Amino acid sequence: MYPIRLLAVGRPRPGPIRELEQHYRTLLKAHARLDVEDLAEGKGDPARQLRDEAERLRIPLLAARCPVLLTAEGPPRSSEDFARWLGVRMDRGDSLVFAIGSSHGLDPGLKAEIKEHLSLSPMTFPHDLTRILFLEQLYRAFGILRGSQYHK
Amino acid sequence: MYPIRLLAVGRPRPGPIRELEQHYRTLLKAHARLDVEDLAEGKGDPARQLRDEAERLRIPLLAARCPVLLTAEGPPRSSEDFARWLGVRMDRGDSLVFAIGSSHGLDPGLKAEIKEHLSLSPMTFPHDLTRILFLEQLYRAFGILRGSQYHK
Repeated sequence: MYPIRLLAVGRPRPGPIRELEQHYRTLLKAHARLDVEDLAEGKGDPARQLRDEAERLRIPLLAARCPVLLTAEGPPRSSEDFARWLGVRMDRGDSLVFAIGSSHGLDPGLKAEIKEHLSLSPMTFPHDLTRILFLEQLYRAFGILRGSQYHK
Repeated sequence: MYPIRLLAVGRPRPGPIRELEQHYRTLLKAHARLDVEDLAEGKGDPARQLRDEAERLRIPLLAARCPVLLTAEGPPRSSEDFARWLGVRMDRGDSLVFAIGSSHGLDPGLKAEIKEHLSLSPMTFPHDLTRILFLEQLYRAFGILRGSQYHK
């Protein structure tokens, strides 16, 4: 089972969002050893908060062969393109660590440092809904790579 | 209150997705008179099913001044771009009807007929999750148009 880490800043709202997260994590168990880590939000004004969060994200991200930031500005990719992208990295055996920022996004310094950005949409979504979108696309990507019918 | 219709083919899965739909519909009550209509899925093989569904969608869509199809291939727009797009149409008083297809998408004939497409992402998401994304962006758009802090 391929190991994949997701670092996510801020806890999801209780209720349906957490249930959906659990739903997709359970589905993903058949495909990957997914490790989701909740990181506490930073303190202070937004810029300070983002620097705080970047500090906590930097070490686990830079330790990975393939660190990826989820940002709205990343290059647009279809689900098939993302599946191909994922397949190439798994074939190479790259360690994969993805990071989702808090409601204020991600620190501009960190965005400049980590070159690989993944955009799930050019639109902005709440950070906890972004987790769901990412987990769903990851599950879809495994389906595409294995030629299942889920993504049809 | 501005009237907006959403035609959505196929019922959402019971559980968290429906709860989230209700959550955003409740939030939207402060901003619009939103009418969400569930349309039954068509029958037969995928192409036949899509033609069936297109037949049911065509009349209410063509009756609107501004019918919009939600498709992955529509022009990419940020949340701010979508809010602006919505604001222009509401200022003109255009009747707005949006349509979300079933798990097979939308009929190619209907896509050619209705020129205005809205893309929430170039990626494919389950049709019931697409509803949530649309309702969230609609709510966010009203926040952007009214200068609220929600979208920050």
